[in-house]
Amino acid sequence: MSWDPELERAFHPNSIAIVGASSAPAAQDQQWGGGNQFIRYLQDLSFAGRIYPVNPKATTIRGLQAYPSVSAIPEPVDLVIITVPAPIAPLVLEDCIHAGARNIHMFTSGYGEVGDEEGRRRELQVAEIARRGGLRIIGPNCMGLHVPAARISTMNGQPAGPGPVALVSQSGGHANFFIRHFGDQGIGLSKVISFGNGLVLESCDFLEYLAQDPETRIICMYIEGVKQGRRLFELVREVNPRKPVLIWKGGLSQAGAGAAASHTGSLAGAPQVWEAFFRQTGAVPVKSVDEMADVVRLFLHMAPLTGRRACVIGGGGGNSVAWADICNSHGLEVPALQEGTRALLRRYVPPAGNGIRNPLDAAPLLRDLTALRQAMELVAADPNIDLFILNSDFQMGSQPNPEALEKLGSFLIDFAHSASGKPVVGVLDTANREVLASTAKLVPQLQKGGVPVFSTLPRAARSLNSFVSYHLALRQSQDAQAGPLPSPGN
Amino acid sequence: MSWDPELERAFHPNSIAIVGASSAPAAQDQQWGGGNQFIRYLQDLSFAGRIYPVNPKATTIRGLQAYPSVSAIPEPVDLVIITVPAPIAPLVLEDCIHAGARNIHMFTSGYGEVGDEEGRRRELQVAEIARRGGLRIIGPNCMGLHVPAARISTMNGQPAGPGPVALVSQSGGHANFFIRHFGDQGIGLSKVISFGNGLVLESCDFLEYLAQDPETRIICMYIEGVKQGRRLFELVREVNPRKPVLIWKGGLSQAGAGAAASHTGSLAGAPQVWEAFFRQTGAVPVKSVDEMADVVRLFLHMAPLTGRRACVIGGGGGNSVAWADICNSHGLEVPALQEGTRALLRRYVPPAGNGIRNPLDAAPLLRDLTALRQAMELVAADPNIDLFILNSDFQMGSQPNPEALEKLGSFLIDFAHSASGKPVVGVLDTANREVLASTAKLVPQLQKGGVPVFSTLPRAARSLNSFVSYHLALRQSQDAQAGPLPSPGN
Repeated sequence: MSWDPELERAFHPNSIAIVGASSAPAAQDQQWGGGNQFIRYLQDLSFAGRIYPVNPKATTIRGLQAYPSVSAIPEPVDLVIITVPAPIAPLVLEDCIHAGARNIHMFTSGYGEVGDEEGRRRELQVAEIARRGGLRIIGPNCMGLHVPAARISTMNGQPAGPGPVALVSQSGGHANFFIRHFGDQGIGLSKVISFGNGLVLESCDFLEYLAQDPETRIICMYIEGVKQGRRLFELVREVNPRKPVLIWKGGLSQAGAGAAASHTGSLAGAPQVWEAFFRQTGAVPVKSVDEMADVVRLFLHMAPLTGRRACVIGGGGGNSVAWADICNSHGLEVPALQEGTRALLRRYVPPAGNGIRNPLDAAPLLRDLTALRQAMELVAADPNIDLFILNSDFQMGSQPNPEALEKLGSFLIDFAHSASGKPVVGVLDTANREVLASTAKLVPQLQKGGVPVFSTLPRAARSLNSFVSYHLALRQSQDAQAGPLPSPGN
Repeated sequence: MSWDPELERAFHPNSIAIVGASSAPAAQDQQWGGGNQFIRYLQDLSFAGRIYPVNPKATTIRGLQAYPSVSAIPEPVDLVIITVPAPIAPLVLEDCIHAGARNIHMFTSGYGEVGDEEGRRRELQVAEIARRGGLRIIGPNCMGLHVPAARISTMNGQPAGPGPVALVSQSGGHANFFIRHFGDQGIGLSKVISFGNGLVLESCDFLEYLAQDPETRIICMYIEGVKQGRRLFELVREVNPRKPVLIWKGGLSQAGAGAAASHTGSLAGAPQVWEAFFRQTGAVPVKSVDEMADVVRLFLHMAPLTGRRACVIGGGGGNSVAWADICNSHGLEVPALQEGTRALLRRYVPPAGNGIRNPLDAAPLLRDLTALRQAMELVAADPNIDLFILNSDFQMGSQPNPEALEKLGSFLIDFAHSASGKPVVGVLDTANREVLASTAKLVPQLQKGGVPVFSTLPRAARSLNSFVSYHLALRQSQDAQAGPLPSPGN
């Protein structure tokens, strides 16, 4: 892998040219189309660098001096965004070569994705110009780059704060939704890359870049099809142990593969191939934006976890059965606590109507912090248990007490990190507005303190399973690298 | 099966005795414990019959004349609720026999569920008394009955309206949650029965009763373990074709089976046995309260559906891939539309960036009702398609137009029932408050008009699959009953 300092300039540009900006009154404030939306986003974000609208007929666009061509701009710009129609784009690319501008985001569509001869011909032409001029083209037919730290975005006027999570997406719509959803979940982003047809730079190139990017610690990918399967495999296998790689592979079903062919002309690949890919690389498979965000939060906020045996604490006998079924079906174990643990637990949980096999059907515990601490320390000492899931939906019923909630939160954060404790995640499953309002502060506090909170138990269980599987695979491959154990004979 | 007119009186009682009501000031308004909660619920619901508190030391409880025993009440009451501690309960049961009161709800706990010798001994004693006196006992250790039409509830002061859906639950907590959740979803209830340990009457008895109950058209069950497996099998197989039976079987996983043993002392049974049970009875398996409500809404509001090939309409290329994957993984098919259909569709959906293979990536359609109608009629004529899923999350973006929404709603209801249409379900996947507020009226209107709306596509797909599977199994068994087709040789 090689670090490309010139590509880096695209992500932290000092100057951006937007080719295809318009001075027509109707275009000045339009949401979509033309280049003006990109200028507006940059202005909304208070981009600190220089913005150059390019239009041969305009003098001023959105208060900025316009230039007739990229080569007329008084400096070689770090990033050019091309929004002109496809037939004109080759001229602009030649102009970029002439001007010494090498980083190009082609928003322009009308290429391979149309599926006709003309589209394919245009694609070949663009590829030839790029090769000849050494252009680093993102696209065509894509939304481009979103870099909160650089205050640039071609996708969303209100980006999430900067952070260590990168996203590479073959779908601009998904990229947009990722940005919004990750922002809602308090997940900071380093770089988001929507790369469309991937004509010149494609997923492997961006992965290679992000592998070296000091701002990125976790890499999320949405992939429909792969052009360089072997390269992706090698890259992911190399990067994943240092920077977890989460992949949403679209089109794994028969119908989905058909839709992917229609969307990005991608060959989706057989499900078995992708199963092997995940097994052999250790990358984390996910199936939605929600799930991606859930797993990312675990990587951001929890220490490595190498056991999947959960103690579930909540209330209700029917709930206990349901919760055990849910955890099991999502790959977690809910083993019976040891006899000795249960005997001691009976001091804190009354026998009538409260099961202590696991799950702990122990609503009274959740109203008595001292008892909860003692019970949880007992369970943490049980060698059958790796982590706790605190399912508090019932307990925060209709009248949550802010003071009690705060104390519970502090205790959980302490416990999760204490020598006599074990990792904890919370579940707050409610649509009750009062409950949501009174826990609005607590949930991010808990997460920051290393106790991620999920909105449902299935989501918690599924993402915990992915998180544990990642760390177990990592450990296994480290053990394998350390050499095989001495074999007793054969 | 035999209709038990005497059990019927428990569900529509003219008189109820509550044994164990208290006149102590602290107990008068308490939420839980004692018998006063049951009196309070009946009063809150304006129960039209007579309420008799029973307490040997009180004269008045919650404004009602109290009696020292059930036999002191001036009439043989239709339902007795026993809330006294377990050691006293046998005396009360003998008193009921003496008074000619035969329908008993035993809220009292402390029996088999405790798991000790004393509990088992008490259970044998109650069973003996019940046999000798012909008592129809619901319980012990249960929440009892909830019958909105009779204005009685032992579980919830604010019941959903009356309706055709019955629920039989081995968990009082689940029963309570069912009532609230079904109410939120606008599902009316005929009878809810929480029957706890099922010592005398158990799930089969209630199923037999509901099979004959003219107020019940759909039967929901939550089961952990079954005492009379063969009888349940025969009953469900007989009832299910007339009244769909939906069963949430708790404890199908290893951990869940352990929790069920601890909760109701149930033997959960092997998953393979239950798979065969569902296959051979045609009953609908579900795995949560949410899913139960989703499937019930389809049975309530949609005509039978015997094909699983969906046309999904929405917007976004990445979304199309995701939606096809989701539908496929939940058992629905999303076949490519026929070439002829696609050629005609191009009149209404522009080629650039809008896939029409299926899903239809056709946001513009959803802004133009005339085009939408023409496109949907084209698709409805395609022999590859059985139903539509309209995924409108994006379209109802940030500024839903109330007038446009209403027109869309009317069109969908018409279309779903017109000769040139096909069944339609909607998906409104949003957490946006504005959108939720502006669609708050539309969603129930659509549902009432035969177009159920779901909060996510996975929920829609999963419940549609269950609904279709029910009708397909029914058709198959009817075909089988009509005799085998003539066989050409062997």
